[in-house]
Amino acid sequence: MDWLLTPGPVRLHPKALEALARPQLHHRTEPARALFLRARTLLKAAFRTEGEVLLLTGSGTLAMEALVRGLFAPGERVLVPVYGKFSERFWEIAEAAGLSVDRLDYPYGRVPRPEDVAKGGYRGLLLVHSETSTGALVDLPALAQAFKAENPEGLVGADMVTSLLVKEVALEAFGVDAAASGSQKGLMCPPGLGFVALSPRALEALRPAGYYLDLTRELRAQGEGESAWTPAINLVGAVAAVLEEVLPRLEEHLALKAWQNDLLYRVGEELGLRAVPEVRSPAVAAFYLPEGVPYGRVKEAFARRGAVIAGGQGPLKGRIFRLSLMGHYTRYEALGVAALFREALADTLPPS
Amino acid sequence: MDWLLTPGPVRLHPKALEALARPQLHHRTEPARALFLRARTLLKAAFRTEGEVLLLTGSGTLAMEALVRGLFAPGERVLVPVYGKFSERFWEIAEAAGLSVDRLDYPYGRVPRPEDVAKGGYRGLLLVHSETSTGALVDLPALAQAFKAENPEGLVGADMVTSLLVKEVALEAFGVDAAASGSQKGLMCPPGLGFVALSPRALEALRPAGYYLDLTRELRAQGEGESAWTPAINLVGAVAAVLEEVLPRLEEHLALKAWQNDLLYRVGEELGLRAVPEVRSPAVAAFYLPEGVPYGRVKEAFARRGAVIAGGQGPLKGRIFRLSLMGHYTRYEALGVAALFREALADTLPPS
Repeated sequence: MDWLLTPGPVRLHPKALEALARPQLHHRTEPARALFLRARTLLKAAFRTEGEVLLLTGSGTLAMEALVRGLFAPGERVLVPVYGKFSERFWEIAEAAGLSVDRLDYPYGRVPRPEDVAKGGYRGLLLVHSETSTGALVDLPALAQAFKAENPEGLVGADMVTSLLVKEVALEAFGVDAAASGSQKGLMCPPGLGFVALSPRALEALRPAGYYLDLTRELRAQGEGESAWTPAINLVGAVAAVLEEVLPRLEEHLALKAWQNDLLYRVGEELGLRAVPEVRSPAVAAFYLPEGVPYGRVKEAFARRGAVIAGGQGPLKGRIFRLSLMGHYTRYEALGVAALFREALADTLPPS
Repeated sequence: MDWLLTPGPVRLHPKALEALARPQLHHRTEPARALFLRARTLLKAAFRTEGEVLLLTGSGTLAMEALVRGLFAPGERVLVPVYGKFSERFWEIAEAAGLSVDRLDYPYGRVPRPEDVAKGGYRGLLLVHSETSTGALVDLPALAQAFKAENPEGLVGADMVTSLLVKEVALEAFGVDAAASGSQKGLMCPPGLGFVALSPRALEALRPAGYYLDLTRELRAQGEGESAWTPAINLVGAVAAVLEEVLPRLEEHLALKAWQNDLLYRVGEELGLRAVPEVRSPAVAAFYLPEGVPYGRVKEAFARRGAVIAGGQGPLKGRIFRLSLMGHYTRYEALGVAALFREALADTLPPS
């Protein structure tokens, strides 16, 4: 397939492939330590934090769980708005960690309002910045502010899995204390590395939890360019190589990602498709299926043109389809994808 | 550095590098599902089990923790002989999981005897097959048999991190119920994937535990070629490619690994070095440092010739050095390494 249009894993950055073709590094050597520290410095710049970023070998879900268990003790009260599959996952993780969880439900596609989280008595709030399952973006700074007005000692944890390097993020400036992300989305690398960014406040609150996902242990090791466990050091190299390329021209990169996702929505509107999210994330464009057209027919129409797309999840399964240009796509390739989108959709509709 | 002689990560197999150079696969597509199932089938053959092998995105330590938490409930009694850094890790993991742990201590380099574990009243026994920190190999079948004679309902969990594809393993035939391993040792792939092999008996005993490392969830997903969380699918491709190459001539491969490690010990003996382990694993050759020679000097002598070696861990730190040809090395390359070893050692000794 030539066109990977799924919202992660995504089309790889050429710098990532180049890094992965190198001979194996041993992680307990000077070149590996230097690389690990460089990746951490670059990730701190990407998350815009004065705190720390820890690299974990695992998926974004591991990073979400490590964040939750590292910040909150069993029994502590947290608020979790659920407005898609990944915010649902935050809720599941908080429950599995034994927290006392209050859940706020929204129809998939909608997003929480600041007034919804302006409630006292909580130790934490967990939010997904870009809800990949619906294409919705939440207003993190406004939500964090409303929550903290009622809970000055509270901590805000965010899933930035599909916003890092896709939409502007800034940990402390957003009022966010900790964020999780991964290598296979905006970073345009293969899956296998998770990240947890911790603000200075989160670092103070950090507690030991579990074994493999104990962030206090990682913090001690990673300050020296080490890691508690054998890291996916090849992926660390890929992540550093991509960040070195993208960060110096981040503004331009984010503008391109926004333009590309808008392009998908413009084409969808031309074709009479209805968008899923009320507020749009630049990570993915989500559309309801045309009346009477099953998802399989749309998927096949794209597949015949060499493109892989994503369907709906949870209550949206069989009701929507999703396209993403979050991976390595130039402006011209995106225009090619727009043409492909038009042709594929035409193919699925009954002849008029 | 041309010669990676560390006992993991190791020199990559060319088939692994080839697989990693391919464009990104999305894990929720047919080609990825087929690949995932192929990797599972090959791993089942490698572990020689009629049960299941689960692939986890993370290090071997994650696989060890998932094994322990998946098999034993908090409070259950387990026996853990400690004879090196990785058996010490098994003990730490069992403690962190809230098990009631009896620890048997051995000087690093020694191994437990069957009579040591022939004690009743236990739900489990945790053993490291090839103790990479000392170069020692334990007699898994004899230990498992002695333990089970006293604990017929007991479960034996093994760390096969540096024995899989290096030394013969056979899950049920060894009396082992579950084993953990990883991608960056005998499989000659980059780090980032852990494996848990489960015998039919272990599958019956499996219990939900945690979130990311919940094996019951993985078992449900992986039967269909899916995984609970986004997998390091690129590494799954690398692992499958290497296994397809090595498994059809496994006997020859294991004979080569044994010959290569014996070669290192033969050279060491020529040079008057004392071996660390009482029973030798083919994964790594461990030697005490020559009298009066600090580790740094040995390391530097190898480094000047383009080779990376490993030092001691725990109580052996600063007292030993370790060399491994577990990675992708042909017979002739191993002979080159033997020459390098002789020259490097000569360099560290005072002129006579």
